Amino acid sequence: MRIDLNSDMGESYAAWRMGDDPAMLSIVTSANIACGFHAGDWNVMHETARVARANGVAIGAHPSFNDRDGFGRRVIRGDSMAEIERMVAYQIGAMQAIATMAGHRVTHVKAHGSLGNLINEEDDLALAVGRAIKAVDPGLFYIVMPGRNSERAADKLGLPLAREFFADRTYDDDGQLTSRKRPGAVIHDAAGAARRVLDTLNDRAITTVNGRRIPVGIDTICVHGDTPAAVDMARAVRKALEASGMTLKPFAAAV
Amino acid sequence: MRIDLNSDMGESYAAWRMGDDPAMLSIVTSANIACGFHAGDWNVMHETARVARANGVAIGAHPSFNDRDGFGRRVIRGDSMAEIERMVAYQIGAMQAIATMAGHRVTHVKAHGSLGNLINEEDDLALAVGRAIKAVDPGLFYIVMPGRNSERAADKLGLPLAREFFADRTYDDDGQLTSRKRPGAVIHDAAGAARRVLDTLNDRAITTVNGRRIPVGIDTICVHGDTPAAVDMARAVRKALEASGMTLKPFAAAV
Amino acid sequence: MRIDLNSDMGESYAAWRMGDDPAMLSIVTSANIACGFHAGDWNVMHETARVARANGVAIGAHPSFNDRDGFGRRVIRGDSMAEIERMVAYQIGAMQAIATMAGHRVTHVKAHGSLGNLINEEDDLALAVGRAIKAVDPGLFYIVMPGRNSERAADKLGLPLAREFFADRTYDDDGQLTSRKRPGAVIHDAAGAARRVLDTLNDRAITTVNGRRIPVGIDTICVHGDTPAAVDMARAVRKALEASGMTLKPFAAAV
Amino acid sequence: MRIDLNSDMGESYAAWRMGDDPAMLSIVTSANIACGFHAGDWNVMHETARVARANGVAIGAHPSFNDRDGFGRRVIRGDSMAEIERMVAYQIGAMQAIATMAGHRVTHVKAHGSLGNLINEEDDLALAVGRAIKAVDPGLFYIVMPGRNSERAADKLGLPLAREFFADRTYDDDGQLTSRKRPGAVIHDAAGAARRVLDTLNDRAITTVNGRRIPVGIDTICVHGDTPAAVDMARAVRKALEASGMTLKPFAAAV
Repeated sequence: MRIDLNSDMGESYAAWRMGDDPAMLSIVTSANIACGFHAGDWNVMHETARVARANGVAIGAHPSFNDRDGFGRRVIRGDSMAEIERMVAYQIGAMQAIATMAGHRVTHVKAHGSLGNLINEEDDLALAVGRAIKAVDPGLFYIVMPGRNSERAADKLGLPLAREFFADRTYDDDGQLTSRKRPGAVIHDAAGAARRVLDTLNDRAITTVNGRRIPVGIDTICVHGDTPAAVDMARAVRKALEASGMTLKPFAAAV
Repeated sequence: MRIDLNSDMGESYAAWRMGDDPAMLSIVTSANIACGFHAGDWNVMHETARVARANGVAIGAHPSFNDRDGFGRRVIRGDSMAEIERMVAYQIGAMQAIATMAGHRVTHVKAHGSLGNLINEEDDLALAVGRAIKAVDPGLFYIVMPGRNSERAADKLGLPLAREFFADRTYDDDGQLTSRKRPGAVIHDAAGAARRVLDTLNDRAITTVNGRRIPVGIDTICVHGDTPAAVDMARAVRKALEASGMTLKPFAAAV
Repeated sequence: MRIDLNSDMGESYAAWRMGDDPAMLSIVTSANIACGFHAGDWNVMHETARVARANGVAIGAHPSFNDRDGFGRRVIRGDSMAEIERMVAYQIGAMQAIATMAGHRVTHVKAHGSLGNLINEEDDLALAVGRAIKAVDPGLFYIVMPGRNSERAADKLGLPLAREFFADRTYDDDGQLTSRKRPGAVIHDAAGAARRVLDTLNDRAITTVNGRRIPVGIDTICVHGDTPAAVDMARAVRKALEASGMTLKPFAAAV
Repeated sequence: MRIDLNSDMGESYAAWRMGDDPAMLSIVTSANIACGFHAGDWNVMHETARVARANGVAIGAHPSFNDRDGFGRRVIRGDSMAEIERMVAYQIGAMQAIATMAGHRVTHVKAHGSLGNLINEEDDLALAVGRAIKAVDPGLFYIVMPGRNSERAADKLGLPLAREFFADRTYDDDGQLTSRKRPGAVIHDAAGAARRVLDTLNDRAITTVNGRRIPVGIDTICVHGDTPAAVDMARAVRKALEASGMTLKPFAAAV
């Protein structure tokens, strides 16, 4: 069995550093690279793509609202869906050019922050992001949350998709992530996270906070790298997957 | 004989309007579209590309320093040449994606403002812009000033190029534009500009302010559209070219 | 009887122009100057303050969300109230310094765009803006909508306030502006707008779309200047006020 | 004898952290706070001012070119001196408002990065920054390099000034900092730096790289806090000054 491990990267910006990208690029198989809107810039994008290439890590554009002040985590309302589409396409294209310059190739798109949350809540935004991907390159994978609006949008648009499971988060009965505000919603224990990932893959189902079983296929596991503890968790998840006999490989045959 | 007529466009931004793009898109054969750095945004870029497509006008990326405050006219020093390359590649890629979304295709690149000036003064910047173009797509035309650093850079890199003549500017003996500060450096008379363009094309040479003749091939004529008078001049130049039997066509077989 | 006429100004930015500020500064008695967040920059702010000074027009800071792409009209959620306070204080301070440099003095604050709407809907935002004003200078007038959250916030904080009436908008029974989407919500007829203003002032009450009478004191009338028709309406409102014997004067004794 | 110790602070931005401000605020007597142009934002500015207040540290505005991409280190040419003045005034005003909100008060201004370098090379820029300070508040201290353009500008404008000595840099015979590119131009040894500071203060003269003695009065010593080693050096300098019997106190009676 084959699985992908993805992480957000390239979130440094100008003189500011964030995360330990070199460490994460030795752990994951896919990197979601910030496109200069919530984080990153052409230099950070290039360096991230270059090191990903050297590590055989597939790369994706990680578009967001144009919100550097809020790291793309704020909800910005008022743009039409056509405007959202263009905003996302702009970022994908910028990332493609930088990837090409670094000898690499963008093979997926994952929406960041509040945009990433909203595509699992609202059909119109899920479709807007999907249409942007399709318009730029219909061969790009759309990273989606299984059972939610983003997966339905990718299906409807005929886009290749990768269904994602979050290693460090619990799930509600509707397939959504439990709010971070609820105690226990974020898993801080690396071994526990690794076990949850294995259980979900073996079960072919997510077990929710209420014990409900949601049958899903999972193509990629999301891990984080913003703290040393997060890097340790990513490493633990990778080790557990390998120990259980799985092959870690990008969902897209990128590199 | 065939010639191209180019103009800078897509310089509106957000709630602000600039220039009469619809008028210009009915006159020129190539449009240089601002990429969101000195002007423009994903919406303006899309609309400009869409109308260009509808008018059979070829489009190019019009990258600049990241300088919205200064409309790309300020000189910004301190970036390495590698950083300039990535900055330009980012803009080209963004424009490509938006063009694709609008059913069009980028076929050339023209540097804007102070970046556009500096590539005719400094080899390293001319090469940096050229390398960015080549890295993203070696089939893109580099718009250059004949006899200057940009043309040499394009030649050295083996890029297709389009040599440009400015309809409304006089030239110094070194092939550079006469400084705008010198009286007479900017031509305001539409008929005079049209005549100058024809003379230069027929002569296969630029005649400088001192009467020197610089033999050059010209592939594209630059006209402006920022004022009603500029639009009138563009129209006059087009009419004069047609009246003299020339075919107006993009230098790139784009549309 | 004395009344103030206010208008949003200084909404040009960098190379882009918007509105006819010189015309408006010959009509109104108070100008709300954009602070560089949704529009304006230090140069536009300075020029607007300078011409206001020369015309005896009082000036206010016109803070907004940090949203140039959306002209401050988009709703941005995710900042804490303390963050909103600081964001507003930053803009007021910047405007004060530029005003001082131009020989003028900020005497009021009016929130712009979606921030301006939200302070009439949500107590916490109305208070956040009020606390920002109070922290910077408790003598600054807070422009409020009579009967709504902003007025209550100003009262609670003990801030001087100016109750505003919109010359070109109709009102709902709850004292809110009728949504622009409802037919007739925006008044385009200058004479009609002038009459409405006089009726409201004489009546000491707003008459709503349903004919309900909301008793209010009005300190300032808002007019717009973004189109030639808007400038004409502003002029008509001023003339009608003068003809009815009212004195046009800033609510703050600024100049 | 009394001396001030200053450091640049508040250079975090949005989600990004930089420097160890709490440590530095327990060492220095004056903090130069980034105003949101090269670094910082209203939240970082407020937190820095608040902690400075709590530590009895005086604060200054630390304005720069509007250059977040380049951390204010790039040279940006093309603005008129009047535009530079307004740009600096805007930042000072924003900082004043945030300081007031945090219960503190701005008492000095120090130009950052390339702007800080240029005011020691070019009279017109030194005067533009000085005029901005004077226009906003003629009681603000202008931090200057002794013997250079900035000191002359402050003198000419009648501004209070504080002459600065860099603890970790060597000086050329013209009173300028030796270029960072020259080997040995940056001092990495904390004890050496502390000794240099004492020697300069006792001598009432800077000793240049060529052994020349430039007689100067020094009001403030600049130390850095961007690395743990820099914090250590700042601490060493403070200890050396105290051990030699000097009183560490802000040059402005701020707190």
